[in-house]
Amino acid sequence: MAYREVRSATDDIAFVLDRLGVGDALARLAPFREFDTATLMQVVNEAGRFARDVLAPLNAVGDREGCHWQDGEVHTPAGFAEAYRQYREAGWPSLPCDPDVGGQGLPIVAQVALQELTAGANLAWTMYPGILHGAYECVHRFGSEALQDAWLAPLVSGEWLATMCLTEPGAGSDLGQIRTRAEWLDDQTVRVTGEKIFISGGEQDFRPNIVHLVLARTPDAPAGSAGLSLFLVPKWLPDGERNAVHCTGIEHKMGIRGSATCSMAFEGATGYLVGYPHGGLEAMFAMMNSARLHVGASGLGLAQSAFEMSARHASERVQSRVPGAASGAPIAEHPAVWRLLEGQRVAVEGARLLLYRAALAIDEAHHAETPEAQQQANALAALLTPIVKAMLTEKAFEGASAALQVFGGYGYVEETGISQIMRDARIPMIYEGTNEIQAIDLFMRKIVRDHGATLGQWLDWARAQVCEALTDDAPGGFRAALAGFDEWQALMPDAIALAQASPRAALCVAGEVMRVVHGLSMAGLWAQAALADGDDVHGKRSAARYWLKFILPDTRRAMGIIAAQIAEPETAA
Amino acid sequence: MAYREVRSATDDIAFVLDRLGVGDALARLAPFREFDTATLMQVVNEAGRFARDVLAPLNAVGDREGCHWQDGEVHTPAGFAEAYRQYREAGWPSLPCDPDVGGQGLPIVAQVALQELTAGANLAWTMYPGILHGAYECVHRFGSEALQDAWLAPLVSGEWLATMCLTEPGAGSDLGQIRTRAEWLDDQTVRVTGEKIFISGGEQDFRPNIVHLVLARTPDAPAGSAGLSLFLVPKWLPDGERNAVHCTGIEHKMGIRGSATCSMAFEGATGYLVGYPHGGLEAMFAMMNSARLHVGASGLGLAQSAFEMSARHASERVQSRVPGAASGAPIAEHPAVWRLLEGQRVAVEGARLLLYRAALAIDEAHHAETPEAQQQANALAALLTPIVKAMLTEKAFEGASAALQVFGGYGYVEETGISQIMRDARIPMIYEGTNEIQAIDLFMRKIVRDHGATLGQWLDWARAQVCEALTDDAPGGFRAALAGFDEWQALMPDAIALAQASPRAALCVAGEVMRVVHGLSMAGLWAQAALADGDDVHGKRSAARYWLKFILPDTRRAMGIIAAQIAEPETAA
Repeated sequence: MAYREVRSATDDIAFVLDRLGVGDALARLAPFREFDTATLMQVVNEAGRFARDVLAPLNAVGDREGCHWQDGEVHTPAGFAEAYRQYREAGWPSLPCDPDVGGQGLPIVAQVALQELTAGANLAWTMYPGILHGAYECVHRFGSEALQDAWLAPLVSGEWLATMCLTEPGAGSDLGQIRTRAEWLDDQTVRVTGEKIFISGGEQDFRPNIVHLVLARTPDAPAGSAGLSLFLVPKWLPDGERNAVHCTGIEHKMGIRGSATCSMAFEGATGYLVGYPHGGLEAMFAMMNSARLHVGASGLGLAQSAFEMSARHASERVQSRVPGAASGAPIAEHPAVWRLLEGQRVAVEGARLLLYRAALAIDEAHHAETPEAQQQANALAALLTPIVKAMLTEKAFEGASAALQVFGGYGYVEETGISQIMRDARIPMIYEGTNEIQAIDLFMRKIVRDHGATLGQWLDWARAQVCEALTDDAPGGFRAALAGFDEWQALMPDAIALAQASPRAALCVAGEVMRVVHGLSMAGLWAQAALADGDDVHGKRSAARYWLKFILPDTRRAMGIIAAQIAEPETAA
Repeated sequence: MAYREVRSATDDIAFVLDRLGVGDALARLAPFREFDTATLMQVVNEAGRFARDVLAPLNAVGDREGCHWQDGEVHTPAGFAEAYRQYREAGWPSLPCDPDVGGQGLPIVAQVALQELTAGANLAWTMYPGILHGAYECVHRFGSEALQDAWLAPLVSGEWLATMCLTEPGAGSDLGQIRTRAEWLDDQTVRVTGEKIFISGGEQDFRPNIVHLVLARTPDAPAGSAGLSLFLVPKWLPDGERNAVHCTGIEHKMGIRGSATCSMAFEGATGYLVGYPHGGLEAMFAMMNSARLHVGASGLGLAQSAFEMSARHASERVQSRVPGAASGAPIAEHPAVWRLLEGQRVAVEGARLLLYRAALAIDEAHHAETPEAQQQANALAALLTPIVKAMLTEKAFEGASAALQVFGGYGYVEETGISQIMRDARIPMIYEGTNEIQAIDLFMRKIVRDHGATLGQWLDWARAQVCEALTDDAPGGFRAALAGFDEWQALMPDAIALAQASPRAALCVAGEVMRVVHGLSMAGLWAQAALADGDDVHGKRSAARYWLKFILPDTRRAMGIIAAQIAEPETAA
């Protein structure tokens, strides 16, 4: 007997699009009138097939082989470059790009689904085209007309790949420390000199040209992060000359070993300004929402894969000592294993509820009818993005570890494959802004700055869902969730006051604020899902019941810690 | 500026022995009258030096090289065998063995310290002598006189090494499924035939002979685990003949890659009965308390190493964006990093409080003056052992992951070394009984079986410590801890009743019971430590304050889940 029918990622995405109104909301946006849910699901299912048939078989290979560096060149694992050829041929790079520049004009919702599915099958491979969309957005939104004419088309088609060059040996989370110099040749062109590290796909053998987006400091720039400008530095210049940017080595990493993580030397390389001088951070942050959402989507993809693997194993492995079950029962029937599996399922399906709500907000921010509606959607996207990034990547790592535990000793052996997922899942908690940075962003920028206005609106919606679930025949336990909303409403003004009076004390509980906001958001989303899924007793209703019983109490725990910190503020020693 | 003075493992062990009465309690036991705390600390410090000077330098080497198998032989990483030669020459294998058979007669407390320190420096290496003490205990307590005469001395001296052969492809947590056969040659001798997997050190190049302790089933045996007998199966027989047991391969693992994890084929190998026929499990379980305590000690050792590494890094890495701190402050001063570091410190120092209390209980169980006192100590050791095993290994993995997060991108690169600790730390949560098995053991065998009598006595002690802390000038927050004791006292009878009425429903919250009992135990131990450390404001008092504020709330969370499960029992689907 199999553990309860495991819902595939694509089926669950279909549920979210179809039953939770995401598809309908998209159809109300002008550019997506023609994409009904059925059309979107054709794309999603096609992405699922590509991930399963082309990318998944290369996942273990990539981990085993890793990348090899020699004399500035990088050799990716067998089959990786060919998979990208197919990806490009199928048109995946242009999916969410503007039709005016050759894109297919699909919503970010579809792009996020593509990311979830490809990363779930093979995160290391997915790193290579991973920056493409961000680079496109940067150039499309901030590039001069000349820059767009020269560089946009090959990014849209995926003919060239892209990187984001931020980190330096002395500048990680703190971009203000960046020392890479850019000297003006004219008002659009610079010579870039400096070292960058941890550059994913800084060199590869997929495509000949690579477009590096580089944060650097011009001689006339003010100190700190406000003085950074963004430059496009291609590997090959338009005149066919090799630019002075080279890969000087690759990292030997715990996971995503098929992804080349490069050290890059810029030695007077020619670069082109993106946006305006000293506007580098703004250009960077403009693409941050969707980039961080992509990282969250990767986490969800990995968590789904780990869940499926462990559910299959637990349904097949028979041991006799399952209390209250027939002799020869699969271990999935053991209560301890059930907790490990059901915990994963609820994390995965819950993550999907949140992820696609946030993706929809980005589409609405771009395309809602009125500027007010756009602004409102943009604020919601900005609020939800750090939550998606941090909580989905954390749940991916926890889920992979739980899946490994289901395998027992077999999980610790590399051949099983679950170890790779756990090792791969550890890095999304760090890159694209560590999860600690996300918590600070959420608390200080997204909550304190507008005095909780955006959060309040969002929680009003979530609370209303919970209230509706109370009067319906939905699972019990939503009453405790309601109390959580009230408790937070009473606490939030004090938390904001603490952040204003003593940022150091407030930052000590930024992680707890993240957990509370995530928990209350999920209460609303689970209420909505449970109500939408009235018939499906083994589906969202049972998941919501599990969540309310076993996961919601963590929200109260976090709230208690915040309250204690407000009562007796303590700063880091 | 360095993150607050990081207390070394040996200094903190000294604190526990000296200030928390462990040393005094040992000195009250007849065999340890001569070992005052100062003498014990000489041994502990010597172990610390050995770990630091000999084992730590081999840790990365072992991970990089791994083990190699060829034609039944195993080659361990460079330097491993030589380190064992020094270990043996220094007399470490005989540390806790009975002086009557050539041992040094030191307490289990000292043996646990040795394990903590060696595993913290190099877990893979520590696996090789890891079973030695268990094998000694088995043969010493259950072996016939003839068996002891032949096999005890080389185990005490460490001339030979040992393995424990339990797991088979179809029998992991469920030993009742073991299929390895033992056919009687006479009433003490058998021929053993079968396959065993995941055998640590099943083959190695440290020492010529290996003593395998093998669980197998005789033809006359009843089904299930009650029919298992334990046999000693040496690699080389006393007559110099090679026995029919061979290593057929080794595993390629996520971590402890320097430890050879072997598949073993027994092909009519000669074996000798240990204990009585069908008494295999009893003999196994007799050594389980100290074996599981050793696993917990390994977890603590790894957590300490990860903490030290990340604290050092955070004190040295300077970034400017530390709110409220001077420009150019080390990241350790950032509140988010402080949480990661202080969380590790409190986990490590708290683990030590629990571990040495449990080790003392084992020594008291062996050597207390009256049978009643021995029985009482034995019950306490049995209660604390699964908690030590599960919670200390879980905290090791969490701590290593937190340490990796402190390193950021650098942590994900293998050269830094923190990745290895995290990978190594993942296996102790699985072996020697998975942590889920520990939770079941705690709840069903150690709490339900005696209706909470042993637990009640232990919590009375812990509660008394907390009460004392309330009247002293110890950190606030102990009042919330006190409420936790009362809440659990009200809940425990219902939890026991649930376990009797519906084991499946009860097992769904066995993990939460583990967390509650651990949390309340720690409340008592932290109260004791805070009171003992009145002067040291940056020591146990600040750690206790952190624990009360940030960690204790998890105990209430777990209690809430148990209460919800009692109110509405749900069994695994």
